[in-house]
Amino acid sequence: MSFPYELLIVDLDGVVWRGGRIIERNVEALRILNDLGVKLVFASNNSSISRRGYAAKLTDILGFKVPVNHVFNSGYLASKWIMDNYGSMKVYPIGEDGLIEELTLMGHMVVDDVLSIEAVVVGLDRNLTYKKLETAHKAITMNKALFVACNDDHVLPVDEGTIPGAGAIVAFLVKSTGLNPIFTAGKPNRYLADLLLKSMGVPKDKVLVVGDRCDMDVTFALNSGLDSLLVFTGLTKPDTPLTIKPKYAFMDLLEFVEFYL
Amino acid sequence: MSFPYELLIVDLDGVVWRGGRIIERNVEALRILNDLGVKLVFASNNSSISRRGYAAKLTDILGFKVPVNHVFNSGYLASKWIMDNYGSMKVYPIGEDGLIEELTLMGHMVVDDVLSIEAVVVGLDRNLTYKKLETAHKAITMNKALFVACNDDHVLPVDEGTIPGAGAIVAFLVKSTGLNPIFTAGKPNRYLADLLLKSMGVPKDKVLVVGDRCDMDVTFALNSGLDSLLVFTGLTKPDTPLTIKPKYAFMDLLEFVEFYL
Repeated sequence: MSFPYELLIVDLDGVVWRGGRIIERNVEALRILNDLGVKLVFASNNSSISRRGYAAKLTDILGFKVPVNHVFNSGYLASKWIMDNYGSMKVYPIGEDGLIEELTLMGHMVVDDVLSIEAVVVGLDRNLTYKKLETAHKAITMNKALFVACNDDHVLPVDEGTIPGAGAIVAFLVKSTGLNPIFTAGKPNRYLADLLLKSMGVPKDKVLVVGDRCDMDVTFALNSGLDSLLVFTGLTKPDTPLTIKPKYAFMDLLEFVEFYL
Repeated sequence: MSFPYELLIVDLDGVVWRGGRIIERNVEALRILNDLGVKLVFASNNSSISRRGYAAKLTDILGFKVPVNHVFNSGYLASKWIMDNYGSMKVYPIGEDGLIEELTLMGHMVVDDVLSIEAVVVGLDRNLTYKKLETAHKAITMNKALFVACNDDHVLPVDEGTIPGAGAIVAFLVKSTGLNPIFTAGKPNRYLADLLLKSMGVPKDKVLVVGDRCDMDVTFALNSGLDSLLVFTGLTKPDTPLTIKPKYAFMDLLEFVEFYL
């Protein structure tokens, strides 16, 4: 029996690592698939690290070369969506270095003067201040700046529990401005899948989404018309009630791969 | 014709002042009413300044003595509600000096170590940081701390437009924790009216709520079974569509008072 997929869209947190710990059995499975010639792309809603940063980290962990253009994060997707739809803009980011890098590489100009801001892009920002929120609020309400979200994740898992995610910052601005984001770039939005299917030339039924969350990864697959594999190496446990049924559910990716070998 | 009310519950921002500017005609009306022996209490959802601070400021502006116990802000109300229902608690405030003063005067202990926090109280905090939000989030999710809001105002008016209000900070924590506040102290909650009616000994039909906002002041009057006067000296203008009908709507308080004199 041969492996039935040509392209895997692999989530990072909860699949390749969790917090600071590498998930060895999933990494082993990714090495096997890479040797088999299966295309691997990596997709994270986290905008704090740039694609370049993730590519270097993944190459190091996996032991094979992961090119930057096989890595997608929500900061890149937000930057690209704005460029595709509005061209180069003057953007005020609420986010960390990785988001600023993606915006700049895409050709946007990062600004912080309310009157010159054309778009506000919101990702996780652990250096968030009221001043930043006030600037974003004024740009959206007074300057009619576009309001774009990197993702709507309500929390991020950390060792001792959770910390608030980009979705909470978005919720703040939704409440204060009375407006919803015009676009939310990360999973479960199918935007990433549309980009990939266009550029990779793989038929839909040969693409598998691998992730640890129903609300993000499985829903993303469903929104995109792709098959999904839920693994229990991250936030979801075998006894977690599933809100949406994935095509497959396995303890980890290696168990799934071994099923076909 | 004599003035038909014995007690007025007067909003501050939009009635006594707007931003840094005093609203002279309303102030003149308040002086007339004070001379007539009408009881005046002042109620603001703003928790940034303490009751003591407001009393001093009002005494200065109005030219007659406004005692501290005739001033109510949402920080005091939140502090009192917790004391009435749970006794003295270890509280983590997201707020400014006025909130910390009210909590301390009420007998609560202000703490910032997640594991010792028993209640999180959220008001406007223009020195908000991600670290404060993370501490509140962890206290609520991991330490099962009470989640109490001073108010749910989505914005505050400033000279050049609006800035985000306490309600936006509350929305952040609602999104990240998945929980709603157990109590929201300020208007339109009737808690203040219940306290006043119990302590002031004035019959309900002799109490008038004066304010500039339908969503807060008029709704507060409605929730409390009190009459309301909407004045157009603040956020609401004569051509603003009204979501809820006040008993009276006048350009300002002096116009209303002169109607009876």
